[in-house]
Amino acid sequence: MRGGSKRELGEALSLVERGGEPAARLLARLHAMTGGAHVIGITGPPGSGKSTLVNVLALHLAEAGRRVGVIAVDPSSPFTGGALLGDRVRMSRASGHPSIFIRSAATRCSLGGLARTTHQFVRVFDAAGYDPIIVETVGVGQSEVDIWKLAHTPIVVEAPALGDDIQAMKAGVLEIAAILCLNKADLDGVDAKLRQLRELAGFAREHGGGWKLPVVSVVAQSGQGVDKLVDAVAAHLQWLDREQRRQAMERERAAAELRSVLEAELVDAPLATARADGRLTPLIDAIVERRLSPTAAASEFMRVAVLGTAQAEGRW
Amino acid sequence: MRGGSKRELGEALSLVERGGEPAARLLARLHAMTGGAHVIGITGPPGSGKSTLVNVLALHLAEAGRRVGVIAVDPSSPFTGGALLGDRVRMSRASGHPSIFIRSAATRCSLGGLARTTHQFVRVFDAAGYDPIIVETVGVGQSEVDIWKLAHTPIVVEAPALGDDIQAMKAGVLEIAAILCLNKADLDGVDAKLRQLRELAGFAREHGGGWKLPVVSVVAQSGQGVDKLVDAVAAHLQWLDREQRRQAMERERAAAELRSVLEAELVDAPLATARADGRLTPLIDAIVERRLSPTAAASEFMRVAVLGTAQAEGRW
Repeated sequence: MRGGSKRELGEALSLVERGGEPAARLLARLHAMTGGAHVIGITGPPGSGKSTLVNVLALHLAEAGRRVGVIAVDPSSPFTGGALLGDRVRMSRASGHPSIFIRSAATRCSLGGLARTTHQFVRVFDAAGYDPIIVETVGVGQSEVDIWKLAHTPIVVEAPALGDDIQAMKAGVLEIAAILCLNKADLDGVDAKLRQLRELAGFAREHGGGWKLPVVSVVAQSGQGVDKLVDAVAAHLQWLDREQRRQAMERERAAAELRSVLEAELVDAPLATARADGRLTPLIDAIVERRLSPTAAASEFMRVAVLGTAQAEGRW
Repeated sequence: MRGGSKRELGEALSLVERGGEPAARLLARLHAMTGGAHVIGITGPPGSGKSTLVNVLALHLAEAGRRVGVIAVDPSSPFTGGALLGDRVRMSRASGHPSIFIRSAATRCSLGGLARTTHQFVRVFDAAGYDPIIVETVGVGQSEVDIWKLAHTPIVVEAPALGDDIQAMKAGVLEIAAILCLNKADLDGVDAKLRQLRELAGFAREHGGGWKLPVVSVVAQSGQGVDKLVDAVAAHLQWLDREQRRQAMERERAAAELRSVLEAELVDAPLATARADGRLTPLIDAIVERRLSPTAAASEFMRVAVLGTAQAEGRW
């Protein structure tokens, strides 16, 4: 996989996706090879053309000699096959490039699971020498901030034709954004939207930590302006390193990874065991029938399942 | 609070929001009084006018003699004060009604925390005798499904003027939707959008469990069609009870609540303690410097912090 084999990278991602012991062992082994990749986040409302932008950005970077990983988290992205009306043909250029590897992290599990999968995928791509790694999320709400925190350079994509969507560009998103990108800059209404975005960028700059949030206009469909976007991404990376922000982010990420492993081991695994051996059902009955509160049921569960399991496994 | 005091309900919600032991104790005590309320979810992309719809729906139900709770999860909702351009004045009617209580659950914490808060707020409203409880989320992506699972009757709101947003109405959302609502039905383009929604509803019906997903047109601003929406909500509730679906959902919810308490007690509390007493820092250092993988660090943490704490607290 380190040698650049796409087949082996694909297998590693699938192994990680399946979870369990083998995934945990692989991730633990890969850990020492990670930490080098620049993670770029791309988010924006449906209709902003962010998938087309990801496509053209990946191609641009690959043609400059980089090995580019793409993780599509947006379940409506054409990359993930979730779009009802999406033309996947448009996306085929990047997916066929020898230096680009695209993988969907869209699953039917909870967001917690999705964030974890995305997180782990970034690690695998990183260990395989992919740099940058582009993570595409729908991210209209505060809700995807957990996933978005993975990105060193989060880009928010907008488009002129989108209706009331300025509401989606709320403070939470702006605080995280490194670059605002106005896509479809050849459409009507581009001036008005550009004015709005610049106003928002001005507002964000006052609250940012010294980074001057730029607004970049592009036409992803034709590639126009993408070189400027690439420049802005490079400038942001330089700023991050000058300010030692990547290191601070790496610490946050380490804490998140630690938490994620703890959650899997201390909560998910004992619950799965109790579900499998039938000990969970009577506890759920007791909650539903209002005989036990969830808190009381949890105490009971911890006493029997978690500590019991730990004891049975000889952990103390 | 059971007597209908808004002040006491507000205090209970704040107590729950602050978390910790007092919140857990209150929720455990309230548990026996819950399970009665019908939870209505309202979701839709920015610009669909869902906040206006929530407002008018709440008023309609309150005027029919119901005590209506509203939980606004969408951080861009005018209810939560997060809208940059939102006219909050429009929302003031419902918030002034004696039988309506509106509360924002939009926080800056992770989605896990947000889902938990929303969940707990529903329980408090329920215990206080509010029925129905309307939960408003932005929910364009798969991402908010965790919160949306709280709703017995999830309503997806659309509007004619919205661009490419049909992509947002992907399979995952449709599978959960109980009602599709076309708002702003007095605007141009209503026929085309209505056709799209009916097509989607037809598709969803084939995959649904017997419920015939209806498409309801409304003009929330004027109240037109809201009576039909209320009828559709009532019909869905009858169907749920006839099919014993509410009971099945109650079991799922009990499992989710149990998991949430376990997460707080087994993961969040020990991490907070270790962070406070300085034992977390060396572990994070070891991960960042690639001396320990997150998995190895987690094992170390569990050995020292979790089991150590449990032992110190005399749990075994």
